[in-house]
Amino acid sequence: MDNSLEHPDRDQIRIEAVLHALADPVRLTIVRALAGSDTGIACGAIELGISKSTRTHHIRTLREAGVITVRPEGTSRISTLRRDDLNVLYPGLLDGVLSAQR
Amino acid sequence: MDNSLEHPDRDQIRIEAVLHALADPVRLTIVRALAGSDTGIACGAIELGISKSTRTHHIRTLREAGVITVRPEGTSRISTLRRDDLNVLYPGLLDGVLSAQR
Repeated sequence: MDNSLEHPDRDQIRIEAVLHALADPVRLTIVRALAGSDTGIACGAIELGISKSTRTHHIRTLREAGVITVRPEGTSRISTLRRDDLNVLYPGLLDGVLSAQR
Repeated sequence: MDNSLEHPDRDQIRIEAVLHALADPVRLTIVRALAGSDTGIACGAIELGISKSTRTHHIRTLREAGVITVRPEGTSRISTLRRDDLNVLYPGLLDGVLSAQR
């Protein structure tokens, strides 16, 4: 298990990358699931109906954009939404996205 | 001049398409310029440093996603941000994007 996953610092996060990361139905499903948990979720536990490699790709896209934090925990990787960082950088954006009915 | 540009109705707008449309530096520049005008702007007047065909492509992407309205006016096309629609569908999203420093 790689213990050194890279995450952008708050001041390295860019709006274009965040919007691109969110502009995908699978990644939005992941973000909505994470929004319901303060302690994080093993993303393998979210029902997505996609292959493990595709899931890994989507998780990486969210992590590299600065939308989520991923930390190893035992044999799992726990993902957490970077709610504080996103709310400081782009106040309202995350709530607007999460409130979307469609 | 095509007088019948298609725009999605409010209930046809989808969050993935809006986020995709916004996830581009040129399109963000256009949206920021439009955010400063209630009456709309001829997008040809926004300095973008890109070809006319590329500009047309970006404008179309924004229009088809439901982010902007484009109406012919004489020999120009005037674009307006669909602020009300976006604020009803995704409260906070547009303000969050417009407040982005990077």
